[in-house]
Amino acid sequence: MASIDLNADLGEGFGRWRLTDDEGLLSVVTSANVACGFHAGDPVTMRRVCETAAERGVRIGAQVSYRDLAGFGRRAMDVPRAELAAEVAYQIGALEVFARAAGARVSYVKPHGALYHRVVRDEEQAGAVVEGVLLAGTALPVLGLPGSRLLELAGEAGLGAVAEAFADRAYTDEGTLVPRDRDGAVVADPESVVERSLGLASSGTVRSHTGAVVGVRARSLCLHGDTPGAVELARRVRERLTASGVRVEAFA
Amino acid sequence: MASIDLNADLGEGFGRWRLTDDEGLLSVVTSANVACGFHAGDPVTMRRVCETAAERGVRIGAQVSYRDLAGFGRRAMDVPRAELAAEVAYQIGALEVFARAAGARVSYVKPHGALYHRVVRDEEQAGAVVEGVLLAGTALPVLGLPGSRLLELAGEAGLGAVAEAFADRAYTDEGTLVPRDRDGAVVADPESVVERSLGLASSGTVRSHTGAVVGVRARSLCLHGDTPGAVELARRVRERLTASGVRVEAFA
Amino acid sequence: MASIDLNADLGEGFGRWRLTDDEGLLSVVTSANVACGFHAGDPVTMRRVCETAAERGVRIGAQVSYRDLAGFGRRAMDVPRAELAAEVAYQIGALEVFARAAGARVSYVKPHGALYHRVVRDEEQAGAVVEGVLLAGTALPVLGLPGSRLLELAGEAGLGAVAEAFADRAYTDEGTLVPRDRDGAVVADPESVVERSLGLASSGTVRSHTGAVVGVRARSLCLHGDTPGAVELARRVRERLTASGVRVEAFA
Amino acid sequence: MASIDLNADLGEGFGRWRLTDDEGLLSVVTSANVACGFHAGDPVTMRRVCETAAERGVRIGAQVSYRDLAGFGRRAMDVPRAELAAEVAYQIGALEVFARAAGARVSYVKPHGALYHRVVRDEEQAGAVVEGVLLAGTALPVLGLPGSRLLELAGEAGLGAVAEAFADRAYTDEGTLVPRDRDGAVVADPESVVERSLGLASSGTVRSHTGAVVGVRARSLCLHGDTPGAVELARRVRERLTASGVRVEAFA
Repeated sequence: MASIDLNADLGEGFGRWRLTDDEGLLSVVTSANVACGFHAGDPVTMRRVCETAAERGVRIGAQVSYRDLAGFGRRAMDVPRAELAAEVAYQIGALEVFARAAGARVSYVKPHGALYHRVVRDEEQAGAVVEGVLLAGTALPVLGLPGSRLLELAGEAGLGAVAEAFADRAYTDEGTLVPRDRDGAVVADPESVVERSLGLASSGTVRSHTGAVVGVRARSLCLHGDTPGAVELARRVRERLTASGVRVEAFA
Repeated sequence: MASIDLNADLGEGFGRWRLTDDEGLLSVVTSANVACGFHAGDPVTMRRVCETAAERGVRIGAQVSYRDLAGFGRRAMDVPRAELAAEVAYQIGALEVFARAAGARVSYVKPHGALYHRVVRDEEQAGAVVEGVLLAGTALPVLGLPGSRLLELAGEAGLGAVAEAFADRAYTDEGTLVPRDRDGAVVADPESVVERSLGLASSGTVRSHTGAVVGVRARSLCLHGDTPGAVELARRVRERLTASGVRVEAFA
Repeated sequence: MASIDLNADLGEGFGRWRLTDDEGLLSVVTSANVACGFHAGDPVTMRRVCETAAERGVRIGAQVSYRDLAGFGRRAMDVPRAELAAEVAYQIGALEVFARAAGARVSYVKPHGALYHRVVRDEEQAGAVVEGVLLAGTALPVLGLPGSRLLELAGEAGLGAVAEAFADRAYTDEGTLVPRDRDGAVVADPESVVERSLGLASSGTVRSHTGAVVGVRARSLCLHGDTPGAVELARRVRERLTASGVRVEAFA
Repeated sequence: MASIDLNADLGEGFGRWRLTDDEGLLSVVTSANVACGFHAGDPVTMRRVCETAAERGVRIGAQVSYRDLAGFGRRAMDVPRAELAAEVAYQIGALEVFARAAGARVSYVKPHGALYHRVVRDEEQAGAVVEGVLLAGTALPVLGLPGSRLLELAGEAGLGAVAEAFADRAYTDEGTLVPRDRDGAVVADPESVVERSLGLASSGTVRSHTGAVVGVRARSLCLHGDTPGAVELARRVRERLTASGVRVEAFA
């Protein structure tokens, strides 16, 4: 029987500002990528998200980022390795307190935004993220793009390396994401997203933008939470998966 | 045989900026109050201070603060209880990672600057600091002014409550600090500071600004590290204490 | 013929986050209190709000605040006079660039959040705001609560002192606001808000929470923009005023 | 008779932290690059530097930067054009207030740190800086590296384009700077720095790292202010220039 993890970015407010429907998403996903204060995520929000996640048995992950509230962590930065490693560890440690207070723990690490994309190829920054996870001392698995330098280095360092896929993004014939600035990069039709989720979860395949069936090995699907209708779409994805016999559960 | 702890604020730089001679102070003190990023203290500095402290057997404490880099945490803020508690926990968690990576752990919590002074009387904020420490889950002792609301609430919550004294500050006949804006509030003469340290450590007494001998029960002396000659003065204090048969060691 | 200014807080997003419907509000108000980056308001947003305000002939004001993104400027801070004055001037200068680029200019200053409430009585901070306005060199009028120390000091310094009223807040028999933490402090019923606006604008009176008719002299009404239905309510207020023969226009 | 401008970075502290000896440098240089709050430079410091600069007839320039206090603006960032342009304008506007209050005005713009190096080749960001200057509306000249994309675009936009040279940096045979990570990139010997200053100012030439005489056309020399002995070295440079008949004055 096939199984899949569903993850989403949560706690992406800051102080007075809100972005994600954390309550709604935590009733659907199995893994919560919690913002740790560098691109979003004030301590009160981190605490609340951890409490709700723990109550519902949702796994808590640290979504680490560049220090960039003004840019929401979406602007690539040339952060030297030692700085980035220490910043990653800092964020993990800060989140651990709230996970622990909620009776849970931080179970994985996922880079956010520009850092997520940078560590696909950047040797220095991918190494810095792995070093930061090792510094934090808890040998947490790392969530990222299949084939990314981050997952390779995580594996070499003895950390778990968990690949994720996107049901709402177009794929090339090579099984990589169509860059966001290309036409058709984003799949907007909800029913298509639901169908693609099922393909990715049950057979590890998706139709590329040319129509070919390509393999995308992923143990987790990333659901977006910051668009109107996001929670409703996430719910439909989960229901279709379950109805089709896919077990929805956090990755081991 | 009398014993006393010597503590100092460390890691008070941020990025390009430095303030304290961390190397020098860590060769003298027994407890290091490490800035955790809210008033000072970037992750690289936190890591380095923890490593050096661990190497030298200096105890590591979390110096928690209002979120105020621009004001160095010296401007009192009306932070609501839930926010302040979560911010305190966040800072402790962030520091724990670096203490642990250095083979040590965070052993106590001390508020910084305006927060330090606010929690002497402010019920809500003193309670918030205690709640933050409890949230962090490790039942850490709290360092503060004798008679402060913070130490009272820490004691009621089952946490250790450690009083500290200042050899370079004038005391009233009631054993409280002469406010900083009064004439003679600060003792500038190094030899006087050394003598007062010895009195505080060996007999728990100090001469007040009126010349009376008053009792000040403290298990730790706070040495300032941000003035010229600070490290040299700290060294003289430690030498005089040791030469006079006072054991200089971290509080139990 | 009576006339009244309608002001609202605008541009209260930061980077990825949005709060106010700036487009909607700028089709209703005559004065825009633009956030200048300290509690909210990134440069792109400031630019856009100024451009839209200029196009529609809406007057631009600098909404100055404590430096507190995490608390949205709602936490009182003991900022020393010289610091606060320089911070106020800094914010005004930053906004001036965007007003000027849009073919307009900054026409007044209004403190935000905790600073707004602090300068009602705090001599030092009220003086600092006035000093900041004078530093900026353009002798701008100041918008605030009638009877506040801020308006008194502004007047003494030769600046315009413009009093504002709130149609959605309860008033005491003395014509002051019922504190926000009291029952009934906020008037939630839209029709009541519209009626009270008309009373304030046309006769300078409002019914107090005891039912007495009290005088509240104000040249501007502050409309809130961060609640659901805010723009619609603002529109109704404006329509009722106009229909009743009150001229809605920026204060002279 | 040859003439040259001497510029230095000033006001590079933030709150409690200091970096540059602003008083000392302002007695030597003719142009002050004042930090505007994004990489350094709190409002109180900006005000004080402007006052001292105005008193001594030193020209005031806005040293604009990425928003990066933690990295002191030394980490390249992929800031989108519209954001960067607005951020540049914001910083210029903020500084204008303090220059004006001191009876002076902002006379030029110079990018700082990673932005300075990025705009040598980056079309988008060089364009953004020029757009930011134009937004500020005062047609200020721009200070940068000779041959940089920034100076080219500034010239095309009708702005002044002022080239600067570094007496303490090694040059290639092509007249460009030897990259900082190469051996011998920095000229440490004070007497050599003084000699090179004279060559650059009087004949527009300097000896390259291979020993060849190369031309470097520059109307300003950048003196570093953040190293021990910086002020003393700057003073020696100025004295040698004056003694050799070079007029030291702000660029026209």
